[in-house]
Amino acid sequence: MNELHEECGIFGIFSPNNKDDIARTVYYGLHALQHRGQEGCGIAVDDDGIFSVHKDLGLVNEVFDRKAVASLGSGNIAVGHVRYSTSGSNDRSNVQPIVVNHIKGRMALAHNGNLTNSYELRSELELNGSIFHTTSDTEVISYIITKERLTSPSIEVAVSRAMDKIRGAYSLIIMSPSKLIAVRDPNGFRPLCYGVTESGEYVVASESCALNAVGARFTRDVKRGEILVFSKEKVYSITDHCNAAEPAMCIFEYIYFARPDSIIDGCSVHEARLRAGAFLAKEHPADADVVIGVPDSGIDGAIGYSEESGIPYGIGLIKNKYIGRTFIAPEQETREQAVKMKLNVVSHTVKGKRVVLIDDSIVRGTTSAVIVKLLKDAGAKEVHMRVTAPKFINACYYGTDIDDPACLIANNLSEEQIAKRIGVDSLGFLSLENVVKLPDNGKTKGYCLGCFNGRYPTDVPAFRKKTRFEKKISENGGEDGKEPQ
Amino acid sequence: MNELHEECGIFGIFSPNNKDDIARTVYYGLHALQHRGQEGCGIAVDDDGIFSVHKDLGLVNEVFDRKAVASLGSGNIAVGHVRYSTSGSNDRSNVQPIVVNHIKGRMALAHNGNLTNSYELRSELELNGSIFHTTSDTEVISYIITKERLTSPSIEVAVSRAMDKIRGAYSLIIMSPSKLIAVRDPNGFRPLCYGVTESGEYVVASESCALNAVGARFTRDVKRGEILVFSKEKVYSITDHCNAAEPAMCIFEYIYFARPDSIIDGCSVHEARLRAGAFLAKEHPADADVVIGVPDSGIDGAIGYSEESGIPYGIGLIKNKYIGRTFIAPEQETREQAVKMKLNVVSHTVKGKRVVLIDDSIVRGTTSAVIVKLLKDAGAKEVHMRVTAPKFINACYYGTDIDDPACLIANNLSEEQIAKRIGVDSLGFLSLENVVKLPDNGKTKGYCLGCFNGRYPTDVPAFRKKTRFEKKISENGGEDGKEPQ
Amino acid sequence: MNELHEECGIFGIFSPNNKDDIARTVYYGLHALQHRGQEGCGIAVDDDGIFSVHKDLGLVNEVFDRKAVASLGSGNIAVGHVRYSTSGSNDRSNVQPIVVNHIKGRMALAHNGNLTNSYELRSELELNGSIFHTTSDTEVISYIITKERLTSPSIEVAVSRAMDKIRGAYSLIIMSPSKLIAVRDPNGFRPLCYGVTESGEYVVASESCALNAVGARFTRDVKRGEILVFSKEKVYSITDHCNAAEPAMCIFEYIYFARPDSIIDGCSVHEARLRAGAFLAKEHPADADVVIGVPDSGIDGAIGYSEESGIPYGIGLIKNKYIGRTFIAPEQETREQAVKMKLNVVSHTVKGKRVVLIDDSIVRGTTSAVIVKLLKDAGAKEVHMRVTAPKFINACYYGTDIDDPACLIANNLSEEQIAKRIGVDSLGFLSLENVVKLPDNGKTKGYCLGCFNGRYPTDVPAFRKKTRFEKKISENGGEDGKEPQ
Amino acid sequence: MNELHEECGIFGIFSPNNKDDIARTVYYGLHALQHRGQEGCGIAVDDDGIFSVHKDLGLVNEVFDRKAVASLGSGNIAVGHVRYSTSGSNDRSNVQPIVVNHIKGRMALAHNGNLTNSYELRSELELNGSIFHTTSDTEVISYIITKERLTSPSIEVAVSRAMDKIRGAYSLIIMSPSKLIAVRDPNGFRPLCYGVTESGEYVVASESCALNAVGARFTRDVKRGEILVFSKEKVYSITDHCNAAEPAMCIFEYIYFARPDSIIDGCSVHEARLRAGAFLAKEHPADADVVIGVPDSGIDGAIGYSEESGIPYGIGLIKNKYIGRTFIAPEQETREQAVKMKLNVVSHTVKGKRVVLIDDSIVRGTTSAVIVKLLKDAGAKEVHMRVTAPKFINACYYGTDIDDPACLIANNLSEEQIAKRIGVDSLGFLSLENVVKLPDNGKTKGYCLGCFNGRYPTDVPAFRKKTRFEKKISENGGEDGKEPQ
Repeated sequence: MNELHEECGIFGIFSPNNKDDIARTVYYGLHALQHRGQEGCGIAVDDDGIFSVHKDLGLVNEVFDRKAVASLGSGNIAVGHVRYSTSGSNDRSNVQPIVVNHIKGRMALAHNGNLTNSYELRSELELNGSIFHTTSDTEVISYIITKERLTSPSIEVAVSRAMDKIRGAYSLIIMSPSKLIAVRDPNGFRPLCYGVTESGEYVVASESCALNAVGARFTRDVKRGEILVFSKEKVYSITDHCNAAEPAMCIFEYIYFARPDSIIDGCSVHEARLRAGAFLAKEHPADADVVIGVPDSGIDGAIGYSEESGIPYGIGLIKNKYIGRTFIAPEQETREQAVKMKLNVVSHTVKGKRVVLIDDSIVRGTTSAVIVKLLKDAGAKEVHMRVTAPKFINACYYGTDIDDPACLIANNLSEEQIAKRIGVDSLGFLSLENVVKLPDNGKTKGYCLGCFNGRYPTDVPAFRKKTRFEKKISENGGEDGKEPQ
Repeated sequence: MNELHEECGIFGIFSPNNKDDIARTVYYGLHALQHRGQEGCGIAVDDDGIFSVHKDLGLVNEVFDRKAVASLGSGNIAVGHVRYSTSGSNDRSNVQPIVVNHIKGRMALAHNGNLTNSYELRSELELNGSIFHTTSDTEVISYIITKERLTSPSIEVAVSRAMDKIRGAYSLIIMSPSKLIAVRDPNGFRPLCYGVTESGEYVVASESCALNAVGARFTRDVKRGEILVFSKEKVYSITDHCNAAEPAMCIFEYIYFARPDSIIDGCSVHEARLRAGAFLAKEHPADADVVIGVPDSGIDGAIGYSEESGIPYGIGLIKNKYIGRTFIAPEQETREQAVKMKLNVVSHTVKGKRVVLIDDSIVRGTTSAVIVKLLKDAGAKEVHMRVTAPKFINACYYGTDIDDPACLIANNLSEEQIAKRIGVDSLGFLSLENVVKLPDNGKTKGYCLGCFNGRYPTDVPAFRKKTRFEKKISENGGEDGKEPQ
Repeated sequence: MNELHEECGIFGIFSPNNKDDIARTVYYGLHALQHRGQEGCGIAVDDDGIFSVHKDLGLVNEVFDRKAVASLGSGNIAVGHVRYSTSGSNDRSNVQPIVVNHIKGRMALAHNGNLTNSYELRSELELNGSIFHTTSDTEVISYIITKERLTSPSIEVAVSRAMDKIRGAYSLIIMSPSKLIAVRDPNGFRPLCYGVTESGEYVVASESCALNAVGARFTRDVKRGEILVFSKEKVYSITDHCNAAEPAMCIFEYIYFARPDSIIDGCSVHEARLRAGAFLAKEHPADADVVIGVPDSGIDGAIGYSEESGIPYGIGLIKNKYIGRTFIAPEQETREQAVKMKLNVVSHTVKGKRVVLIDDSIVRGTTSAVIVKLLKDAGAKEVHMRVTAPKFINACYYGTDIDDPACLIANNLSEEQIAKRIGVDSLGFLSLENVVKLPDNGKTKGYCLGCFNGRYPTDVPAFRKKTRFEKKISENGGEDGKEPQ
Repeated sequence: MNELHEECGIFGIFSPNNKDDIARTVYYGLHALQHRGQEGCGIAVDDDGIFSVHKDLGLVNEVFDRKAVASLGSGNIAVGHVRYSTSGSNDRSNVQPIVVNHIKGRMALAHNGNLTNSYELRSELELNGSIFHTTSDTEVISYIITKERLTSPSIEVAVSRAMDKIRGAYSLIIMSPSKLIAVRDPNGFRPLCYGVTESGEYVVASESCALNAVGARFTRDVKRGEILVFSKEKVYSITDHCNAAEPAMCIFEYIYFARPDSIIDGCSVHEARLRAGAFLAKEHPADADVVIGVPDSGIDGAIGYSEESGIPYGIGLIKNKYIGRTFIAPEQETREQAVKMKLNVVSHTVKGKRVVLIDDSIVRGTTSAVIVKLLKDAGAKEVHMRVTAPKFINACYYGTDIDDPACLIANNLSEEQIAKRIGVDSLGFLSLENVVKLPDNGKTKGYCLGCFNGRYPTDVPAFRKKTRFEKKISENGGEDGKEPQ
């Protein structure tokens, strides 16, 4: 029942031979990544230098019908993108992949992440007369690469030089007329991996579950700072930026963003969530009769808590899977009604019981309060809430929408106050000490915990980007109107 | 991963006062019943004798946007329907509620079930010059009621008299200009219950989860053979048919059709499924390391099996929740690819393990075979499949699509042959002895087990209805062409 | 700029052999009849007794895309319908062709016209327990035919017997599994004709322009009261009702409803309109510089007036052909703005001129007033309006929407008052004496002039149908609610 | 029945005060310009520096429903565009207005015309690292203006400086956060005019008919080379480029592109077409009984021919106005069938007659041949075709799709051969001498006749743009693939 959103999923394929159903393969890959972005999506196919693109606002199922997929034709390289965005219907221009024409031909980009110096880069480009059609970082990146391409012997060299300039979180898939290029920023904020199909096609994706969906065997994760180049001649790696920064994988990928069947940087997401539950059982034990999880992402943690504590696991909440994006939410009703439509309590599981309730996070706390009320109305004697993440108290600058600390309940209230507000009998958050142990690789460093502890792995912008950018527009509007004539 | 389909869900509301958002309430109720039918849906609203109807093929979300809901206006009675059908886009005429005009005014009907004597009734009506716009039983029922209405003092008396003529499975909600009437057939094949909201509106629904969704408190199930009449003057029950037949609730409602958070005839569906798992653990123990379920309906049984056997429960399969109705399935690929898109294995859970796999049924066996292969490819050492239902070997005549026994794998192969065909190391089905114990009410009789044991609670048609009916049309076509002139 | 609406166009085809593109042919035929009904349309195809139907609200272009046409498959008989209706989106059930199942098989009906005794027939049927899914006369007709079919040796005999019972205006095309039947009522209110294609297919249509569109050669009009039967064995005519009533062709078909390139009952519609202009020039001469017509239906009359009077014809008004059904009309603006969007004055034609303005009718007068204002604003010195029809002062009971005499300006004001109200310098209507001479066949009798002179060729209902019917529903609603229990 | 296409229509509005329905006004303006482009359209609204944009492929009616118009909100400046394009569904990126962000804020552009040096400009920009999202000239123009804006004191000075660099045909409407700017190229190829509404809003549009549609009074045409600036402070004109080139208004605007109710550069389009007919009557008299025109654009010429020759004007062809963009054209049928669907002969007008047939152009000649056949099949004794334009023998570089001279029938055949090919008894084209006299302003110079006589008012590109550009992409594609690594 998490209210946070990842901002993107990316997918690319390089086939040694022209492939009739290349768009279809990307379509399947994007389906497997749909959880990473539900606002818009797109696919670009390269058929010997001729690019075909189809993209729009909407789910993969909505944007791509049989006709749209067919219209992309055949090709040997393709790239796809699913996007989350907070903006409205006018924002079609921000849907990716972005396709640009430059002096050396065409280029398509799909990007997951967020730059921290895009404002500076954008200003500099604008001062040289550049124009922007979108408000996205991706267009900034495509500009920087294009500029470098003018004096670079190849697209990959241009990408490498661009990496000296851009800062922040970026997993990129770039398509040129003859190459597919996968890039992960030196901190490795966002996941990216690749594999090979039985027929020898290379597949790059945000998560390994997308490799599985298209029948590709997982090869390995793209390394932090690595540039992987797939071309007819060879597949090779540029590693110049590989040690340019400290590792800083987003720990929240394990807790919430990624799909449980994915394996990221060698660690199973599902297992990480079981461990989160287990850690919670040790950190915050409860005297209870049943452990239940908030579907979908609290289920794994609940099972982990149950296994560790010995308290039986139960199904206490059923999610209505038919509530789609076009669902007409109750207007004049209370928030309670809205949640009731999406979640229903299995009374048998909780009636007369002391319940441990596992969720993956508490953002504003309003949804949690309703869930707790539903459980108590159904007869739960006690509700002990356990959260498989530490408290959010800071903004994220690396590609999620944890934006305004002022909205975060944990930033304003003490743990006791939160418990009281949401009506639970006890409340426990996963500790910072244990959260870094979720990936089972023996390492307890190398993760970005910025949203929890405020220590960011890179410089961060002086002020929040989106607000700033919009202000800029209207300010200039004013100025332009007053200029002397 | 069940391939069976219930054919309908019904919902009705009677408000003492005109209610602005009455269509909105039905919309929410149908959302909660969407699992009972995904092919078409509709809502009819009665505003003081003026009926408004909107219905079409598609999910509730697709058929009803804000404008469509608003177009239904206000009223004090309304009825809704979700439908499953096997036929194509031309079948819009079969979408319910069916609204008919007759001598005493208008009537809307929503029906869940299947008549066993509809061919006879239809023929008789046709011989008197009746015309049919649809091929549905519901139109037959509306005719019978209309005929009786001519000589009956009230609509409910007409309904009661009609019940003397129609046979088979029917849960009905009928709306006249001033009354809402809920009816359940004397065998009680399909569920039906009602409740009251805080503001005094009566709500009738196929399952209690729909009462919860609209904030209504569950009152009780409609009794077998009962006619419940809701009008401004009074709410009363006609019980003439209440003991007209043996109870024969469909046991498969507990196993698969109903939502786990529903309570049917006093028994929790979720609990019934846990018990199914537990019974299996006793009937068919396995020497294994983990118990997993096929989402969504195998999950409860897996938890029950785990609890009873002590073998840990794990999440072994992840379902892609974004595969919608418009999904473009792989064409030239194997069936394996198609299943891969929908289900992905959590390798961590099964790798190197002896796995107990719980599913709710095996119909044709093809899907099961692919799932088993996926598990073994992911490293499962052994797969022991346990099914929370007995073997299907007979057709159903009461409103599901278990149609042609020739397609049922259990009808053609022995248990060992099935195990071999789907590639499992052992296989066990729930026994007939225990399946009747799933509802925890101390009773072990009063269920329809026709699809398992071939003993039907009523006379059944000599041949299957749908095929017959279609044959009839083309035969007559031929005859009509050859008639003398 | 006429605000009146015909209620239907019908089209049928009988091919001796199974034809792959039979639905496509009907699609083209309906396109040519689209001016007769823009609210809904449908096509039913018969493939050896199996009927496929697709119909919906909307223009032919909107309801039928490539997929919908293809879904109808091949066949050797088909029937189509375009419909005008005043009701909203809930009225999908009234879209035709209506397809019914009866004891002898299936039947599809397409109907243009309006019965005058449908209330009586409907009541009688309802008293015998019949139910109605629609509020249309067509369902009544299908019932009557079905009832007769029970005791008739063939469908055509049943149709003939049904004609003894139904009264009013009806051009019908009926499809049985092996025959296509065309019927025109004994008064011949609405047009109907047929022809043959080069490959020997018989085509029946409301107007000859639809025969042209599908490459069929016009054979002849269907006679008043005739039943034409097309079957594999033979094509033959049943003429029992041919002299059962006085001829009463709707004269307004020539003035406005039909397409100018159609020939109805042997007379060119275009020529009739030219003659209307010429008659006006004699009846109401004007001292003027230019004659202009209101597009589209006033153009022919303007040319006729110009030819007869010697005053030059000019193009004075341009119609915006892109104003579609979804056009968002100005809300808060005056009616003037709305008309401005649709019509623009060609100033050069009217500036400083004395203008004769030809339109086909004045219904409420509001549009005329705006057009006159636009012309004067553009510099017209004088505007002399001439109308190619007599004054409307009565309702029509035969299939148009001239409904409520109270709305007709000519019913409330004298000619002088009308002229003043719409701002013209002089005004002239075509005389009753001349209107019957529009069809150039030497006859001046045999037309229905009911809307002009109130003399109806048949008995008419005591009160207006639609209102009555709706009242009936709510009245019964009330009664039903009060019935004793 | 012309097969040529104008490429754009533009519309802008500047209101002194914030206006709630500003998008609605542009919507009406675009409706009036829909004939200039039917492939795509868009509207951008400026509300105090915040821009809202909605644009898509499709007609104005299709792209803008009530919700889309409302989503644009209020504002005091807005600009709209209708576009014709030959490319497919992937071409959404080329739909205008184009909105770009640059260092000084935002800018929206709407463009009608075609640059002749866009390839050079684009190459130069690309060499400096610019990227292009579209293949349109409009993006090139926006870049040039942006570059100049860096060193210009105001947007209008930047526009003026940009005009020193861009060559060819361009009528532009530019929206900055505080100004609306209208620009016409120094040759004045494409029309542009402006007016004022009663409430003091300034309206700029491609044609005066759009001013009428929104209730604005025509002020004057924008002059060749003029920059008109509308701001809150003042409205003023920059005339630096006004005499920079010879006037070269496209004469085909009068013959075909513009709406007859428009007045361009002081001359009525309708009158020009009447004169074209009259000139033809003198140049190519015919011994005939009736003059008919091919709808819609041949009608005016036919009336002119009739008036001059004294041969009566008649309506010989009826156009089916319901054939929309989604019409499923006959596939396996002859071209004759396709034309028959769109045009039907009024037999009465032509039967047994010697017919003068007026059309506005002959491009490939195939449609003409079918029309002539239809007339002869309907009984026309002779057909004398007269064309209201000289013969097309050259490509157009200024914004129409007269592209490949090899396709032009007049480029390959003599007049006699053409007449024989299309089956007419005589054929006459308007002379070059008279075509320049169509606008009734006493001038016979100052028009672009390039498509007729090959004398272009500007340098033209060495090769055709579209082909070139697409070649460029694939060539670079190849190169990029072979580059050394």
